[in-house]
Amino acid sequence: MALILKEINRFCKERITEKRLYAVPRLWIPKFFKSFEEKSGKFFVDPYEFGAAVTDWILKHSKDLNYSQPLSFLNSERSPDWVKRSVVYGSLPRTTVAYNHKGSGYYEESDALGFREAGTFFKMILLLPFVKSLGADVIYLLPVSKMSDLFKKGEAPSPYSVKNPMVLDERYHDPLLDSFEVEEEFKAFVEACHILGIRVILDFIPRTASRDSDLIREHPDWFYWIRVEELADYTPPRAEELPFKVPDEDELEIVYGKESVKRHLKKFTFSPDRIDPEKWEKIRKEKGNILELIVKEFGIIIPPGFSDLINDPQPTWDDVTFLRLYLDHPKASKRFLKPDQPPYVLYDVIKASKFPGEKPNKELWEYLANVIPHYQKKYGIDGARLDMGHALPKELLDLIIGNAKSYDPAFVMIAEELDMSKDKAAKEAGYDVILGSSWYFAGKVNEIGKLLKIAGNLSLPFVASVETPDTPRIRARRYGSKLKRLAPFVVYFLPNAVPYINTGQEIGEKQPMNLGLDTDPDMRKVLSPTDEFFGKLAFFDHYVLHWDTPDRGVLRFIRNLVGIRKQFLDVILEGKFQLLSDSELVMYSYEKGGKRLFIVANTGSEEKTLEYGGVVWNGRRWERKKKVILGPFEFALILQG
Amino acid sequence: MALILKEINRFCKERITEKRLYAVPRLWIPKFFKSFEEKSGKFFVDPYEFGAAVTDWILKHSKDLNYSQPLSFLNSERSPDWVKRSVVYGSLPRTTVAYNHKGSGYYEESDALGFREAGTFFKMILLLPFVKSLGADVIYLLPVSKMSDLFKKGEAPSPYSVKNPMVLDERYHDPLLDSFEVEEEFKAFVEACHILGIRVILDFIPRTASRDSDLIREHPDWFYWIRVEELADYTPPRAEELPFKVPDEDELEIVYGKESVKRHLKKFTFSPDRIDPEKWEKIRKEKGNILELIVKEFGIIIPPGFSDLINDPQPTWDDVTFLRLYLDHPKASKRFLKPDQPPYVLYDVIKASKFPGEKPNKELWEYLANVIPHYQKKYGIDGARLDMGHALPKELLDLIIGNAKSYDPAFVMIAEELDMSKDKAAKEAGYDVILGSSWYFAGKVNEIGKLLKIAGNLSLPFVASVETPDTPRIRARRYGSKLKRLAPFVVYFLPNAVPYINTGQEIGEKQPMNLGLDTDPDMRKVLSPTDEFFGKLAFFDHYVLHWDTPDRGVLRFIRNLVGIRKQFLDVILEGKFQLLSDSELVMYSYEKGGKRLFIVANTGSEEKTLEYGGVVWNGRRWERKKKVILGPFEFALILQG
Repeated sequence: MALILKEINRFCKERITEKRLYAVPRLWIPKFFKSFEEKSGKFFVDPYEFGAAVTDWILKHSKDLNYSQPLSFLNSERSPDWVKRSVVYGSLPRTTVAYNHKGSGYYEESDALGFREAGTFFKMILLLPFVKSLGADVIYLLPVSKMSDLFKKGEAPSPYSVKNPMVLDERYHDPLLDSFEVEEEFKAFVEACHILGIRVILDFIPRTASRDSDLIREHPDWFYWIRVEELADYTPPRAEELPFKVPDEDELEIVYGKESVKRHLKKFTFSPDRIDPEKWEKIRKEKGNILELIVKEFGIIIPPGFSDLINDPQPTWDDVTFLRLYLDHPKASKRFLKPDQPPYVLYDVIKASKFPGEKPNKELWEYLANVIPHYQKKYGIDGARLDMGHALPKELLDLIIGNAKSYDPAFVMIAEELDMSKDKAAKEAGYDVILGSSWYFAGKVNEIGKLLKIAGNLSLPFVASVETPDTPRIRARRYGSKLKRLAPFVVYFLPNAVPYINTGQEIGEKQPMNLGLDTDPDMRKVLSPTDEFFGKLAFFDHYVLHWDTPDRGVLRFIRNLVGIRKQFLDVILEGKFQLLSDSELVMYSYEKGGKRLFIVANTGSEEKTLEYGGVVWNGRRWERKKKVILGPFEFALILQG
Repeated sequence: MALILKEINRFCKERITEKRLYAVPRLWIPKFFKSFEEKSGKFFVDPYEFGAAVTDWILKHSKDLNYSQPLSFLNSERSPDWVKRSVVYGSLPRTTVAYNHKGSGYYEESDALGFREAGTFFKMILLLPFVKSLGADVIYLLPVSKMSDLFKKGEAPSPYSVKNPMVLDERYHDPLLDSFEVEEEFKAFVEACHILGIRVILDFIPRTASRDSDLIREHPDWFYWIRVEELADYTPPRAEELPFKVPDEDELEIVYGKESVKRHLKKFTFSPDRIDPEKWEKIRKEKGNILELIVKEFGIIIPPGFSDLINDPQPTWDDVTFLRLYLDHPKASKRFLKPDQPPYVLYDVIKASKFPGEKPNKELWEYLANVIPHYQKKYGIDGARLDMGHALPKELLDLIIGNAKSYDPAFVMIAEELDMSKDKAAKEAGYDVILGSSWYFAGKVNEIGKLLKIAGNLSLPFVASVETPDTPRIRARRYGSKLKRLAPFVVYFLPNAVPYINTGQEIGEKQPMNLGLDTDPDMRKVLSPTDEFFGKLAFFDHYVLHWDTPDRGVLRFIRNLVGIRKQFLDVILEGKFQLLSDSELVMYSYEKGGKRLFIVANTGSEEKTLEYGGVVWNGRRWERKKKVILGPFEFALILQG
């Protein structure tokens, strides 16, 4: 098969100059590559020589196959069960492979030497030896589709502000690869992953779009519209008499009876094609940002999104808007509306899963249900995380999951479901994994023990994380210098766990990527104010991980932990699980065929003694012990038999 | 005379729609403008109606004159003495008039409603009623010339990274003004200032340029060059045996004898036109960033600047480089150099005032000496601050100052001289004002008293500041909630003081604009981490002053202070100055024609009683008193006679 990765490999070889001008983190340089030079503490390579060597190494593992198919096709797998044996590396490529390649001065998105310092797919390929060395066999990417430059919260667009879900963001093209196109570079990345036995999972966001979505030009009626002058006080109307939740059907009368809701409904207008079809035909063909053109010519604009929970204190979601899933109003709400009410957004409309209309926007549904297949067919991706799937009508969700699974029965669907008690519902909906909230418990030494019972009872695998792109970093939690080891130790061995390494976690990164969940604003300032990336959030700003000052202890630990887990994977997956915790000793075990594996962690403040032993791993080395003494925050893996 | 301001006024009038979509700070709306609307705590206007009203108001003050001449021409002044009676408002327009004009969501450089949210010259015109209300009659602008987008330290280019000193930065154009050009908008701004009796002082930087300066295409030999591979460890060579200072002539042998210096000298190469004249002729005509083209085609690059002090711990100045003021090496250093040494940068070269060569780069000198006249003739600016003037050869400095003064003898030249003991030297060099360091003393309650003696002995006026664009904000200093009043009170009345209001100071802004002088990194985090501009610096990032939550007490105080000072200006300028301080009571007086004005501030921690009185202003109101009791941080202006 003609791999695009081979073309890139050839291209690199032709360009080798041996001029070492391209600084890369020491950790990106695999053992097999010797042709680098240290200068002022930075490591310089010829990017083409480096690229050629890494792609050579990858291609050495390849056979004559088409690696742009799901790995399940190549492995003849018909079930998503592979995810149960997987370890996931989660990455926002813009950040993961961002680096100051000129090696002096400050980080820039692109620099005078012609290097793209922000992340690119080519650099994701260069990072694969490192990812592989972590023991990860799945890479989960945050959205990499075309992002919007409007309504930004910082210097860089949010990956969740999707301007076009069918197109990759041009900024992921690497100028080192000259006239290669970003689609080819992504294809090569997936090929490279598959050659190395690594699967690729992408993040999809069917419920929302950026407010200047490319879809507007073809389908202005797929969006909600308000008059521009309503923008200034466009906020979710409050209803103090109701609790903080999605409304129930019998509460709709209260909601729609409110003056604030009536005012809110009046802000909406019809879409520009309906207001003035002739003018619209002219405008939609003009160059420039389509939303700006509409604002100027029609005086109307697409409003921001907001939470589906009444009285949610969150501000509006300015960088996204809701797609119009039904062509009519919610069935349960119609009786409260005037006959000429234009399409509008309210809690019920947002939560279309609970309050559907009667006329599905079939064309949009078809479109949304074809996004994942597009990436399956073109690149061979292996799985998807669905954002806000809970807000989709059941029929649409079925269509999305059904389409993906009918192309690839082994395709893995991850539910954005934090509530681990909703595992059965997620399973019924067709998901294979739930996101869960292990990170919440793992971040608190007094709570982590609660996970054992939760995980043991799940009917689906969960993403076993100690931090996520939305949460504080484990290293920045209280007792973080201890939890950075203890938490992954406890979480990664849990029943139903799919261990998840959040990009940067493996080098002890402290700054969160987003202040989304379980956070307080002070988390924004965990770096020193002299740090170039002080106060920046990878979701909204350019951010470089601290590759030059990595926590090598954590890195070694994560590698060992993942390696050891793999060694005992069959015991964990097939053995008998037993929950053994007492109050301040988190403890569980697996037993299979005479072998027993104890996972023990001391979360209390006193020393604890176990009156039995075995072959014991304490996070650093293996030792045979008759009994095991654990100080506070110490932990042990004990193997008997 | 055909004023461009009139054209803008007409243009605005034609565009009035009375659609109020443009949010502006309440403080920008003058009393005479009633046509605004409050929504969700923001104030919305029709920008054209607002623009028409403000320009109407300005034009009402105008006569049939050409206001694109220095105000001194219009006033028939032949001397720069006007500066002694002036009050200066210092502004980086990008920041001063930045605002989220859409009135919801986050600040963006430009937004979906077509508004430029970053500062523009048009908005500077809209701000003039506010500036006038402060009592300021000079606006000093940080550099507004074309900035470089390479080697940025943050999301926005530094105003000191000058890509072309002859051209205004396009980003100051306001899209509200459609096809007007940025030059016209600046011209209108100066006209508007002059109509209102406000002078305009600009900031010029003759010693450095951005590393991708527009000048490269015509004059590659006006720059220094190194091979790209030397960039990674290009740093000022250290010489531990010498002290932290500009070297003296007898120390050059030590400097040049050092291995590190020899290595440094070897990094340099000749300019591309000399390396390969034919190739250069081709490259210089190509499109794209000229530095990037040269890097690619010649493998050479312009190095960053660095301090002229040996062993200065400052890092390299990555966003600027030095211009080549001499075509040969420094006279005093020639004997240490090999005959084929390409032009290079070292402490002596940087400090060309002390170590000149023998062949001045006349063409460059002519160019530099024509920058200020260009702005004098085209716009009628009234003064200039010279950056790093101390490093210029005397002949070049004479040429620059001479050219400016020969066009306008009343033109004011401000020396970037922090050391107030160098007042005489600055005066001899032809300057009219020195920058000084009153902000240093004013920021420390125990030091502020020292200013009295210093100011009283000066032979030149000084910029009487309590904060500058480079220093911490007075409000963020220790005891800032007191010093924000006490410090301007003490400083603005000083002999030789030219009171300076640093943009934002008047509304109690806390976040510094730059961490340049007398600062510690923690100053970066004076805002709450929930603040949209947390951690940002106006020099390197987009920043919006806290117009929506101004410290109205400070604003009222500054207005009153400036007003009262003006009332007694003749006593201050012509009266007999007397220094009266004791240890913790800062006190001085002026006496003229039977009138005596006491300026008294209690900088100690005990209450102090003055056994005499008069008509007393305590910062809030005037009262007649027989004796004056001052608690800690209290102050009084006492008028006798």
